Amino acid sequence: MSEARTAPEDVRRVACIGAGVIGGGWAAHFLARGYDVTAWDPAPDAEPRLRRLVDAAWPALVQLGLAPGASPDRLTVTATLEEAVSEAQFVQESAPEKLDLKRELLTKLDMATPAGVVIASSTSGYPMTDMQTEAVTPGRLVVGHPFNPPYLIPLVEVVGGEHTDRAAVAWASRFYEEAGKSVITMEREVPGFIANRLQEALWREALHMVANGEATVREIDLSITEGPGLRWAFMGPMLTFALAGGEGGMAHMLDHFGPSLKSPWTRLEAPELDRALYDAVVAGCEDASDGRTIADLVAERDQGVIQILRATGRLPGPGTR
Amino acid sequence: MSEARTAPEDVRRVACIGAGVIGGGWAAHFLARGYDVTAWDPAPDAEPRLRRLVDAAWPALVQLGLAPGASPDRLTVTATLEEAVSEAQFVQESAPEKLDLKRELLTKLDMATPAGVVIASSTSGYPMTDMQTEAVTPGRLVVGHPFNPPYLIPLVEVVGGEHTDRAAVAWASRFYEEAGKSVITMEREVPGFIANRLQEALWREALHMVANGEATVREIDLSITEGPGLRWAFMGPMLTFALAGGEGGMAHMLDHFGPSLKSPWTRLEAPELDRALYDAVVAGCEDASDGRTIADLVAERDQGVIQILRATGRLPGPGTR
Repeated sequence: MSEARTAPEDVRRVACIGAGVIGGGWAAHFLARGYDVTAWDPAPDAEPRLRRLVDAAWPALVQLGLAPGASPDRLTVTATLEEAVSEAQFVQESAPEKLDLKRELLTKLDMATPAGVVIASSTSGYPMTDMQTEAVTPGRLVVGHPFNPPYLIPLVEVVGGEHTDRAAVAWASRFYEEAGKSVITMEREVPGFIANRLQEALWREALHMVANGEATVREIDLSITEGPGLRWAFMGPMLTFALAGGEGGMAHMLDHFGPSLKSPWTRLEAPELDRALYDAVVAGCEDASDGRTIADLVAERDQGVIQILRATGRLPGPGTR
Repeated sequence: MSEARTAPEDVRRVACIGAGVIGGGWAAHFLARGYDVTAWDPAPDAEPRLRRLVDAAWPALVQLGLAPGASPDRLTVTATLEEAVSEAQFVQESAPEKLDLKRELLTKLDMATPAGVVIASSTSGYPMTDMQTEAVTPGRLVVGHPFNPPYLIPLVEVVGGEHTDRAAVAWASRFYEEAGKSVITMEREVPGFIANRLQEALWREALHMVANGEATVREIDLSITEGPGLRWAFMGPMLTFALAGGEGGMAHMLDHFGPSLKSPWTRLEAPELDRALYDAVVAGCEDASDGRTIADLVAERDQGVIQILRATGRLPGPGTR
């Protein structure tokens, strides 16, 4: 069946099913990258809402750089799901986050979409294994989880379910890269994938703090934008933490701050920092450093933060006191 | 005793006690802001290490803009703790994160520092209440918790202990603002303060994922830098999540994604999303929006992400396909 699959670099027609914030954001992204986009959404006001979203995003997309021939006019909103996918070479499903609805919709899409064409779900957390149960050809169903807004945030997490062909996962990863995304291809299903697990932990701790009067919404946001958030746009939490260890890097950081894992600094219990975890984290940081020394990383972080302070208009002028 | 306290804007001499990554980073920050800095650290190689750290940071500090007369030559490393603080108008303690050690050191500092002068601890998470127990004048002891590196990341969380004078907390907050920091003044002690609780939740989830083979260090970092991290440098997690609700903002987001709090997307259990929490989060987001509409915030987020993609060299050129 995968014989009918267009090569990732030859895809020209993409269908977006569901046209809310995420589905509409996908439509804007694919339009900007020069694809023909068909979209369908059962809401009665779906078309004006979607066109408004695309129009609002377009100035940003122009700044990001449009592909040749890219135009919002290449968006067609169809009256039925079947019309939307009948000539699609790739389908992105972005329906509301309800398992029954997703399962039913993916089953319908599987029936209506040309054989072999890969169908990706934007689900924020359902495993494809749980969504593909009723599909006739589940092998082409994958998760392609974006971040909001999909036309600006590069990350897509790609993972298959138990009945997904590995070839479909590989195809989707290559297609998303062609379409300008940063792809993490996961080997196994983990609820919430990777980024959502991490940000969900932070979000839940934040909700607990609000619920308990420990911090306001404003303080929570400020504590991130003026603090750790300034580093995370270009250096992830692991390498960032490694630099807290000074010249000794992650190993020294774990020696120094490891005991704080016993502290009640969050409601999330820490894992036991045994030898295996210690070694995995230290080795992982060495791997992720790609040969950069701690001094290189410090210089990179400093330049990164300075560029970001500048980019966000927060760099104070010289001689302010 | 607070009669002897210099006005925050008149402080010229700052003592940094402990000269590792954090203490040294503080020294670099205060030097760049034009203060005379005395530093003390018991390590035998403390002085060369500290001077190396300040030298490494200086190019970044030049880019950030030096205060008039600022110079690394205004750093004096003293042989004893007493010499370091004898003429200080503010003391920043950044010793290793061990409660007994901090308690003993703060007691010594309290004895050696001129009456009334505020002494702040960089502790990442100990409540001042637990550290000030042996001090003779605990009223001037506060927490001033920075982020690494203190010369680049603006945030300082300021909070007193049970025996801290409110005036000392207020003085410290004003002093840090004078010294170019972004200050959150907390009304009550919460273990880990605010930002550390949030990033600790993320860090622990990441450690669990590594321990269980669910993600590599590299994937964890990539999932943040290519994903949510791009937004958090200028818009915190709460307002960012509000935008996932589309035109309906946080209320719609909670209606739509609230049920996902029951999902096993992280090992951290969520609070009950009852009416009170729902209302507090929605009202908090309205407050933090400062009158900006959802459309304003979307435009701001889009511009912010574009600036950051540009600043970090990730903006693809036009017409790449």
